[in-house]
Amino acid sequence: MSLLRPGSHRVAALVDDAAVAAALLAVEAAWSRALGRPGARADPALSGLLAESEDAGNPVVPLVRALRASVDDPAAAALIHRGLTSQDVLDSALMLLAARVLDRVRDDLAGTAGALAGHARRHRDHVMAGRTLTQHAVPITFGLKAAQWLTGVLDALDTVAATRAALPAQCGGAAGTLSLLAATVPDPLATAAAFAAELGLADPGLPWHTRRTPVTRLGDTLVTVTDALGVIAAGVALLARPEFGELAEGGPDGRGGSSTMPHKHNPVLSVLIRGAAAQAPLLAAQLHLAAAQAVDERPDGAWHSEWPALQALLLVTATAASQAAELTRELRVHPDVMARRAHAAAADLLAERGGAADADVEGYLGVAGTLVDRALARHADHPAAGSLPAGGRAGADDDR
Amino acid sequence: MSLLRPGSHRVAALVDDAAVAAALLAVEAAWSRALGRPGARADPALSGLLAESEDAGNPVVPLVRALRASVDDPAAAALIHRGLTSQDVLDSALMLLAARVLDRVRDDLAGTAGALAGHARRHRDHVMAGRTLTQHAVPITFGLKAAQWLTGVLDALDTVAATRAALPAQCGGAAGTLSLLAATVPDPLATAAAFAAELGLADPGLPWHTRRTPVTRLGDTLVTVTDALGVIAAGVALLARPEFGELAEGGPDGRGGSSTMPHKHNPVLSVLIRGAAAQAPLLAAQLHLAAAQAVDERPDGAWHSEWPALQALLLVTATAASQAAELTRELRVHPDVMARRAHAAAADLLAERGGAADADVEGYLGVAGTLVDRALARHADHPAAGSLPAGGRAGADDDR
Amino acid sequence: MSLLRPGSHRVAALVDDAAVAAALLAVEAAWSRALGRPGARADPALSGLLAESEDAGNPVVPLVRALRASVDDPAAAALIHRGLTSQDVLDSALMLLAARVLDRVRDDLAGTAGALAGHARRHRDHVMAGRTLTQHAVPITFGLKAAQWLTGVLDALDTVAATRAALPAQCGGAAGTLSLLAATVPDPLATAAAFAAELGLADPGLPWHTRRTPVTRLGDTLVTVTDALGVIAAGVALLARPEFGELAEGGPDGRGGSSTMPHKHNPVLSVLIRGAAAQAPLLAAQLHLAAAQAVDERPDGAWHSEWPALQALLLVTATAASQAAELTRELRVHPDVMARRAHAAAADLLAERGGAADADVEGYLGVAGTLVDRALARHADHPAAGSLPAGGRAGADDDR
Amino acid sequence: MSLLRPGSHRVAALVDDAAVAAALLAVEAAWSRALGRPGARADPALSGLLAESEDAGNPVVPLVRALRASVDDPAAAALIHRGLTSQDVLDSALMLLAARVLDRVRDDLAGTAGALAGHARRHRDHVMAGRTLTQHAVPITFGLKAAQWLTGVLDALDTVAATRAALPAQCGGAAGTLSLLAATVPDPLATAAAFAAELGLADPGLPWHTRRTPVTRLGDTLVTVTDALGVIAAGVALLARPEFGELAEGGPDGRGGSSTMPHKHNPVLSVLIRGAAAQAPLLAAQLHLAAAQAVDERPDGAWHSEWPALQALLLVTATAASQAAELTRELRVHPDVMARRAHAAAADLLAERGGAADADVEGYLGVAGTLVDRALARHADHPAAGSLPAGGRAGADDDR
Repeated sequence: MSLLRPGSHRVAALVDDAAVAAALLAVEAAWSRALGRPGARADPALSGLLAESEDAGNPVVPLVRALRASVDDPAAAALIHRGLTSQDVLDSALMLLAARVLDRVRDDLAGTAGALAGHARRHRDHVMAGRTLTQHAVPITFGLKAAQWLTGVLDALDTVAATRAALPAQCGGAAGTLSLLAATVPDPLATAAAFAAELGLADPGLPWHTRRTPVTRLGDTLVTVTDALGVIAAGVALLARPEFGELAEGGPDGRGGSSTMPHKHNPVLSVLIRGAAAQAPLLAAQLHLAAAQAVDERPDGAWHSEWPALQALLLVTATAASQAAELTRELRVHPDVMARRAHAAAADLLAERGGAADADVEGYLGVAGTLVDRALARHADHPAAGSLPAGGRAGADDDR
Repeated sequence: MSLLRPGSHRVAALVDDAAVAAALLAVEAAWSRALGRPGARADPALSGLLAESEDAGNPVVPLVRALRASVDDPAAAALIHRGLTSQDVLDSALMLLAARVLDRVRDDLAGTAGALAGHARRHRDHVMAGRTLTQHAVPITFGLKAAQWLTGVLDALDTVAATRAALPAQCGGAAGTLSLLAATVPDPLATAAAFAAELGLADPGLPWHTRRTPVTRLGDTLVTVTDALGVIAAGVALLARPEFGELAEGGPDGRGGSSTMPHKHNPVLSVLIRGAAAQAPLLAAQLHLAAAQAVDERPDGAWHSEWPALQALLLVTATAASQAAELTRELRVHPDVMARRAHAAAADLLAERGGAADADVEGYLGVAGTLVDRALARHADHPAAGSLPAGGRAGADDDR
Repeated sequence: MSLLRPGSHRVAALVDDAAVAAALLAVEAAWSRALGRPGARADPALSGLLAESEDAGNPVVPLVRALRASVDDPAAAALIHRGLTSQDVLDSALMLLAARVLDRVRDDLAGTAGALAGHARRHRDHVMAGRTLTQHAVPITFGLKAAQWLTGVLDALDTVAATRAALPAQCGGAAGTLSLLAATVPDPLATAAAFAAELGLADPGLPWHTRRTPVTRLGDTLVTVTDALGVIAAGVALLARPEFGELAEGGPDGRGGSSTMPHKHNPVLSVLIRGAAAQAPLLAAQLHLAAAQAVDERPDGAWHSEWPALQALLLVTATAASQAAELTRELRVHPDVMARRAHAAAADLLAERGGAADADVEGYLGVAGTLVDRALARHADHPAAGSLPAGGRAGADDDR
Repeated sequence: MSLLRPGSHRVAALVDDAAVAAALLAVEAAWSRALGRPGARADPALSGLLAESEDAGNPVVPLVRALRASVDDPAAAALIHRGLTSQDVLDSALMLLAARVLDRVRDDLAGTAGALAGHARRHRDHVMAGRTLTQHAVPITFGLKAAQWLTGVLDALDTVAATRAALPAQCGGAAGTLSLLAATVPDPLATAAAFAAELGLADPGLPWHTRRTPVTRLGDTLVTVTDALGVIAAGVALLARPEFGELAEGGPDGRGGSSTMPHKHNPVLSVLIRGAAAQAPLLAAQLHLAAAQAVDERPDGAWHSEWPALQALLLVTATAASQAAELTRELRVHPDVMARRAHAAAADLLAERGGAADADVEGYLGVAGTLVDRALARHADHPAAGSLPAGGRAGADDDR
């Protein structure tokens, strides 16, 4: 389902049903390896899994059946999955997907940060009207606006990195005691740790079947990303209005066209990122609702309500992060328009100072420059700064 | 994306991407017919539409391009879509999808109502413990519980019918004035009405590009359905616990099995319906959030946040409705267990009466029977009663 | 808690804790009258109720205790509340509050509709730029924009009226069977009907302790109101920006001032209404979440999560409705600014038509006028039209 | 508004309107002190602030007016608030409230952790039925269940501590440049840092008027708390059902009584905590929605939608944390009932093992004991362990 999520083709392969199925298989293979056996290999048809998933309540049961059917030796077949429960496999698989998405999001955020740092540096002293509650306030610089956006992205990057490092495997067996595994191996918790290591995920120490902080923390992290991107997109969409003309989306020819009006150049990426930022909070809330209602040793519906919300949230966030990297890289800035408007509105912008005969809007910028420098210094010291060339279309907006 | 929505294979074809694309084509064809031209026919590849949708911000622009490319005569090609805007096509297409989903949901609710009416009738006088705030209250009957569930389903059916009948076409042109159409035909509003008629949708009188009551009403209707079904599922999941044993899910052999515990018979349908009922409220809220923030003559992100939420909500609701029809039809009722527990708990159940030496729980049922009769009478008079045989597994639960 | 809800002083008395307590007392009194006894009168201190409410889980138990303590005759005291359960009283009381709020909201919406009808009529043919996805589209009129806002308000009014008429009393006794009442009176359902009549509420036929459609329908209605008002406020907030200057909030001197910038005239009402419209969808979703999870004959937490959400939603909606009536009545419209901008942007606004040498934006309005007439005709025929003088500040915006 | 939030009297004074007003005044006083002036003192009437708050859009403007009016010297009066903007004051004040709430929540969570550690220790080896998807799975111990609850609480405690330490002051002036302050003092950022120090809040380095991570992080933290508590409450509410009888709420006599049924002992605290846990996710989502839509240098509605959601979320969380401390401290555990049921269900509980002739449920507990020890070790090493005596009603549940 992505025709109604324009741009999701950028990242869908990270989280679509095929990715889920592949991750489920990777988890089963890692389990076999953790137990010192060769990982089973199979490629069950997705379409068959769909119907059977309902009978079991989740896709793991039919997948295990297919895996076992693909092995000739009945004894070897019986060992597949043995010791795990469905939730171990599904939770671990979703964490695997999350790991790949967070890696991708981190790269895109690093690109966005680099682009914004470029804008903040270039426009450090370029004045524009500050606006509060829709009305002109005091002057600011576009550099400060870009530095604030940058700081939001760096905050998000830090959260992404911390959450990525903590994504845990799930390994508890039928009810979180590793009962069957304990009947098989001498040190079941060592096997659980080896399983996590095979998956490249953290060993959580205790199973978390009904303690869903890993999932909610992931959700909160993802929505923190879209929050930061949503602010950028809202700013661009506003300042790209013809009545403002202070920013414009760049991008390939034909981007932003209309089905009926040939002149249109819609800020498509901003619009789509805004749409994403409006969706992510409710998807993350769904994860908390599920977490808060977990009962027994595996919940009767709350767990199930997590899956599509998490899948959608991963898709929405990764799409928006990719779009935002392009948006900020290709952004056209018009400091001349900003300056003209600020000077024209000088009387209002300087009213706070109590008298503005000289209309010196450049002279009333407070600590704007210092704040830009602070944000740039944080970026320069940030691990993300080295991962991708800082940029933005150098010169592209140098039309002053 | 349905591997993580077990059961969605039941109805996915009504709302998946292929269905969206088909509906978009159906809308363009209806528009041509409304203008007295043959409807264009084409079958653009979905995969191509995906990437191009991002450039335009929605899938209509590339679809129109593909449609036009499929017509040899340039003049005829240019007429395709002419007069409509992307939003006209996408909104109308989603209403077409909604119409099909509501028709299906109505049938499944009618089946559920019939099954519940059967249970209410059979168990009209079968006593069970009433429970409030988890504790025993006064005695009720299972017939009354089923009658309450039935009433909720009938309420939902009435809402579905009213909303279905009012689903409107969207026809406003670039900014809701039908400007281009008005330059072409003498009575543009008559064309708009003909377009709606071609689609089997209502003529709304005015475009609703930024007045989203048709969408929010649809969303509220769908969540009203899942609310009613969620209550049933919550009741079954509780009363099917081994500590209760008063209900059990029926269904095919193998349903509800575990990947590790051979004896398990999980109430899978109830669990999945509960998961659906937990998701629908936030999806419907997304539609309201979008509606409340509509600006201009087409919003810059709010509209876009509607699409995936509506698609998911249609899928979730239709899946749950189909599952609930099966759940209620196959439900096993154990009135003997209910009665034994009620008699054992008589002292508590009759405490309200102030003294219960004779433990006559059957004698303290108040107006329970009359309330059952009221609900059954409403069902008997309801249009849904005729559409499908009332049922439930007659005799299946007659194990008293 | 209203310091953080600016404007809530307008309506707080309808829904605050004192109003809740008064409604609870009114319900107990109505119950006594329905049974042919004098209604008990008491005025328990709110502060005392607060702490005791926790022990009982709700405020009804301590209130009944206080009521009984205020009656000298022990036999008469024991009759107070007898036959009802706490939920009967609390649900009925909240419906009473809802009735008063909906009455008030209806009046305010009628005022808003009248003001908008005035604007639509005065500006039926006043051209302005149509805008889609933030960019200029084709010309529209401000009359059409006002007519769309009006239609949204009329839709909301119709929903409010239907929901208001159906607000039910709750009367089921301990577990929905009226067991204790049935032991006392010959026709308990007649008593229930009399109770509803005493309260001026509908008789629902069956109790709805765990079938919460009355609550969710109320919530959906309230959010439909704020959706319609949110669109108006979003439009005003945008068009009142200094870069647009096409609308301005009127209102008393000093409204919209800043703590630091003397020149500011913030569109305060629009801003506050936008804030309300962003809150209402999640509050209404809370009601659906509760409805979907109702178990037993009284739920163990879902019911309790309804109360504060419903109280907040009533407060938010009534406040916004009152603010919107003032906003639309005092709205300043600048058709000259609109026209200047439309003419300046004629090349873009007429691009759809394919060539706009003459820049005749007034000549490309499609059916805008007819759509305005349709909306005005609906308003003229609407019951709300008669209840308050249609208006708006006649002449206030006649600065063309 | 707390009559409909039973239990909120425990903590309302931390977050009610009077607390907000006091915090606003504390912020203004801290600002004066940061500038080396005596802090102004006044006690404006709340009722007056309410109406005037609407004109300004927030309560700060009328409060500043009242403060200035309370100072005789006009020059001194003019200095009050000078350099700040309303948002600086309101954001800082809400962070002050948050600090006090988080301190209180930390103490209550520490108490809860201590109680749960006691239960985990006492019941480390007490067997009970594991349950997944409502059905019996394999045996667990109540110690393991308590250890999982404990781990959730410790996770929440860690998050609370980190968030508490990072709560920032807000200090940016009219549009985030400290323009007016920079015209007054030589090092405005040093003043901003001094202001934060006066408030006992962190210095954020940059203003965060439109970068709302401090608010969303706070919200995510609070909902992480209620998630952990909700799981405990859901478990208690289920296991306290008469059909289970494995747990019971303790607490004062009269707690959990009914208005009509004298025998009832409802698990009131669990029910109320469940209600809270269902509300918190949507309140936190409201904060993210606001964060994602921040535009300009102060948003036009998004900011305003934060305030009541944050106030309610603080109240809900602090109430639930206090209730949970009592719930876990007074919890009655019935290991004998747990053991009887586990033995009776041995055939099912041991089905995984494939043959259970000897019904040795105690012999199939896997690593349950080790997992309990892990959780207890984490608790013993945790800063929270020292702050309050670990406990639970020692011996109270020792009824085996």
